[in-house]
Formats: sequence, structure tokens, C-alpha cells
Amino acid sequence: MQLGLIGLGRMGRIVGDRVSSAGHDVLAFDRDAAARDRVDFETVSSLADLCDELSTPRRLWLMVPAGEPVDAVLKELANSLNSEDVVVDAGNSNYRASIDRAAAIDAGFLDCGTSGGPAGAETGFSLMVGGPAWAYEAMTPVFDAVATGPAGHHRMGPSGAGHYVKMIHNGIEYAIMGAYGEGFELLANGRYDLDLEAIARTWNNGSVIRSWLLELCEEAFEQEGNELGDVADYVAGGSTGSWTVQEAIEQEVPVPLIYTALAERFDSRTDERFARRLTNHLRHGFGHHPIVRRDEVE
Amino acid sequence: MQLGLIGLGRMGRIVGDRVSSAGHDVLAFDRDAAARDRVDFETVSSLADLCDELSTPRRLWLMVPAGEPVDAVLKELANSLNSEDVVVDAGNSNYRASIDRAAAIDAGFLDCGTSGGPAGAETGFSLMVGGPAWAYEAMTPVFDAVATGPAGHHRMGPSGAGHYVKMIHNGIEYAIMGAYGEGFELLANGRYDLDLEAIARTWNNGSVIRSWLLELCEEAFEQEGNELGDVADYVAGGSTGSWTVQEAIEQEVPVPLIYTALAERFDSRTDERFARRLTNHLRHGFGHHPIVRRDEVE
Repeated sequence: MQLGLIGLGRMGRIVGDRVSSAGHDVLAFDRDAAARDRVDFETVSSLADLCDELSTPRRLWLMVPAGEPVDAVLKELANSLNSEDVVVDAGNSNYRASIDRAAAIDAGFLDCGTSGGPAGAETGFSLMVGGPAWAYEAMTPVFDAVATGPAGHHRMGPSGAGHYVKMIHNGIEYAIMGAYGEGFELLANGRYDLDLEAIARTWNNGSVIRSWLLELCEEAFEQEGNELGDVADYVAGGSTGSWTVQEAIEQEVPVPLIYTALAERFDSRTDERFARRLTNHLRHGFGHHPIVRRDEVE
Repeated sequence: MQLGLIGLGRMGRIVGDRVSSAGHDVLAFDRDAAARDRVDFETVSSLADLCDELSTPRRLWLMVPAGEPVDAVLKELANSLNSEDVVVDAGNSNYRASIDRAAAIDAGFLDCGTSGGPAGAETGFSLMVGGPAWAYEAMTPVFDAVATGPAGHHRMGPSGAGHYVKMIHNGIEYAIMGAYGEGFELLANGRYDLDLEAIARTWNNGSVIRSWLLELCEEAFEQEGNELGDVADYVAGGSTGSWTVQEAIEQEVPVPLIYTALAERFDSRTDERFARRLTNHLRHGFGHHPIVRRDEVE
């Protein structure tokens, strides 16, 4: 089949490569001419050309950053599409936005959570899809190619369900990373002089906590050393984790681990915490413990 | 080489099978004659016989429950051993007990954290070893056989280091299980009607959070159904997780995720929480919100 691919960043290129390697035709667009030049499949220089040159019904895959860029592309596509076309948004969009976009567009709209990152280039991704069943079926050959295979994608439910499941996947991801982080921090600062790379390798061979993220821990210690070199105590990102916690509050489901992992990210982005400064002072207030001043801590 | 195996429970039998499958001689003891009858390798009916019949220097593997049973065996062995013998304690002993035992025994004593559970019968275990290097080297052929291979075992450091690393492994394990638990609970109680087994399977194929524990989640939903059937809200166990949190407090390393996962276990074992009953009453105290009485909640 033929796929129209919009967005040729790191992830978009991998999607195009996997789809064309599976024997499908890929016709791609990116606003950036340099990005178009880097790929091995055919490209066009405008969204209008993409819509014109694709055979109908059109099968489109958006791999652009979540938020405004998705709306910008959808707005430009709107007049060219019709109800038999299918559009997949494979970014980290908020599931509510996906529900709204599906309702607004005159095409079969699929929200698709994509997990695996650039490392998925070889093994394929895990794809969590929401939207109309007919559109999912129409896209199945492409999902087979982009995912690890048929077991690596699933229609989770109606519009929004794909990005909803991906949102919660990411919340779990935060807490799992935090769990490994705490364990390795205790090993690093505990009572033995330990080789963290050797520990991660030993654990990855047969232990209960073996996982792909633990393989990445092993790589991290291999690349950066036992003390993680100059890797900063700073964690960026956080949108999907924040949405997960907000949704958990709306549903009154306690998610203390996911929330704590999210809060640790926020914590990592401040030089000092107001809450702890106040506690420092309050210990003086009730017990006359000396207030530690800024110039007394290194 | 020849191994003396003490303890023929589920894990001990697997150790014996893996060691004899690798071409070594296994001579085993268990207090329970029925347990001795179940195995395919040679057994003796007392620890004294075991020590007599093993060629010297002796190589012994203890696979008995942590705590008193380990001390009972070591006490009985004490007079028969000498400094060239090696004893491995492969249970979930506290690392402090292992340090004490290594100091007390006249033999090379190795503390060995064993991860992978009965499922390790086929693939082999992850073994975290502490103790003298000479003893670790003497036991290496056995470790190669019991572990997934040479990459599945490592001498972490001196006495206690093996059980110390295993303790923290388990702390991480609690938090990872809690992370999956929270995510699947939100999926189960969230806004879509979702197939949790299909989600776990899709995630296990290429997602960032793929892991052996997630494969066990997939199996759980497959075996018990989307609502987990009659599986109770009750989590047993907790010793290694408690030790991890206690050690983290001593080392002043924050482990909020591991602690929260441990606290959730404690929470699961009470029908009602005193703390929440007090909060229920305090809302009345300051705001005259009605006190919810026991007979008003189902």
C-alpha cells in the first residue's frame, strides 16, 4: 500500500524506513528541505502536493511534535481530505485533543501512542491505537510494519483511547525509572564499594527486575562510569506524567508512586526548595535549633 | 566438580537439577525424606553423612529459608568444616547476618542473593555474591551452572555485599510492581473500557516499559481475566523491602517510591486504617462535615 508520511524528524524517518522496508510505497513531506533530502524514500515539498499525489483513499501518518504542530498540519489538510481517508497522529498528543480532532476532521482519525523511541528502529515500536475500527483495519499493514509485528499494535478503543493508554504507559515509565534510580542511588551511597554496571548486567541476566530500562541503566554506567560522570541532577519533560496524575485525581485512583516520580522531576529543576527553607526556619521556631544560612551549605 | 546441596524445596531442586545438568556431581540433603525421594540426584539422610561423603575441600550450597534455619544448619556443620571448605547461603538472608556468619564459620562463606524465582529453572538465575574472592573462584563452575551463565553472577564485594545488593534489588522490585499496579488500576478504572491483557501484550512488544514483570502482568490478566477474578487486595511478604528502607534511612538516601510501595503492602493487610478514621473525624471537628459511620460504608 501507499503511505503519506508527514514529519521527517528522528522518529518520522524511522517510520518511513520501516514502512518502505516492508515493501510499501512512502511519499513524505517535511517543511524542512534538509530533512527531506536525508531520506531514502520519495518526498514532496508541500502538503498540498502530498494530498494531490497520493492515490485515494489516502493513508496519512503524522509524526510531528504534539500540540500546535499537529493542529497546524490538520488545518492545512482539512480541505483536501474526505471521509474515506485515514490520518494517524502517532505523537504524544493529549487524548482529549485527539477526541476533539477526530470529531472535527472529515476523515478516519486514529490516535496512536508510539513507544520505543529511536531504539525502535530495528525491533519496531509498541503502538497503542484509538479510533474507528475501519480506519484501524485499513492501516493494519502499516501498523504491522512500524510495530514489532502484529503483536506490537492494538486498537485500544474509540478515539482518544490510544493516547490515553500511552499517557498512562508514560506515567508507569516515570515511576519505574524512579525505582531504578532510588535503588542505584542507595547502592552508590551505601556501605559497599560497588560496580553499578556489573550489578545492572547481573540483574539483566535472569533477575526479577530485568527490563529494557535496566539495560539502558547498564549502558548508562558503561558510557558514563560508576558515578555517571557529568550527568546533571536535572530531569526534563513531564507532560504525559502530569496528565496521568491529573487523570488519576479525576478518577480518584491513588497513584502515589507515579506522582512521586513526577514530583522528583520538578524537584530536580530547582536549585533550592522553598518548602525546605521554611522547614529549616520552623525548626528554629519551635526548638531554637540554629537556622542554617545559605553560606553555611556548600 | 562435586556440590553438596542442603535444602530440597522448590528452589533447591532447581539448583540441583541445573548443577547436575551441567555435568557436575550433586549430593544432597534435606530433613524431609519425601523431599529427598523427589529428586534425580544422590541424597544422604543427615548433614553428618553429607560432610563425610563429600570429597574435600567441600563445596556446599544452602538453599533453606532465611533466618533461623540457616543458623541451625551452620551450627550443625560447624565442627565438620575447615578453612578450605566453601559454604554458599543462597537464600534471602539479611546482609548483617551474613557478615556475622562469615566471621563465625571456619570455612569460606559466600552470601548469594538469588533472583528469578522458580521460573529461573529453565533460563537460570541472577546471582549476587559477597565474600572472599578465592571462595567465589572455587565456586565459579557451580555459579555458571545455576546462573544464566557467566554474565548472570558477579562477586559484588566482601561478605554481606551479595545479600546487600539482593536486598536493594528487592526494594526496586516492590516499587516497579507498584508502578505497574497503579497504571493498570488507572486503566481499569479510567474512562475507557480496556482490555488489560492486550495492553500488556502490546507494551511487551517494543515499548519502553517492557520487562519480565510486565510479562507476568500479561500472564496474570490472561489467567485471571480483566478484573483479576478473585485475587485479593492483600500483599504478603516485605522483609527485604523493609530492610531496604531502613538502610536508606541510615544512609540518608531518600527512597520515597520504594517506601511507598512497602507502605502499600502494609495498607493491604488492614481492613481499615486508623489514620483515615481519624481524618474522617477531624473533618467534622474543623468543618462540621458529617462523620461517616462504619455502617454507612459498604
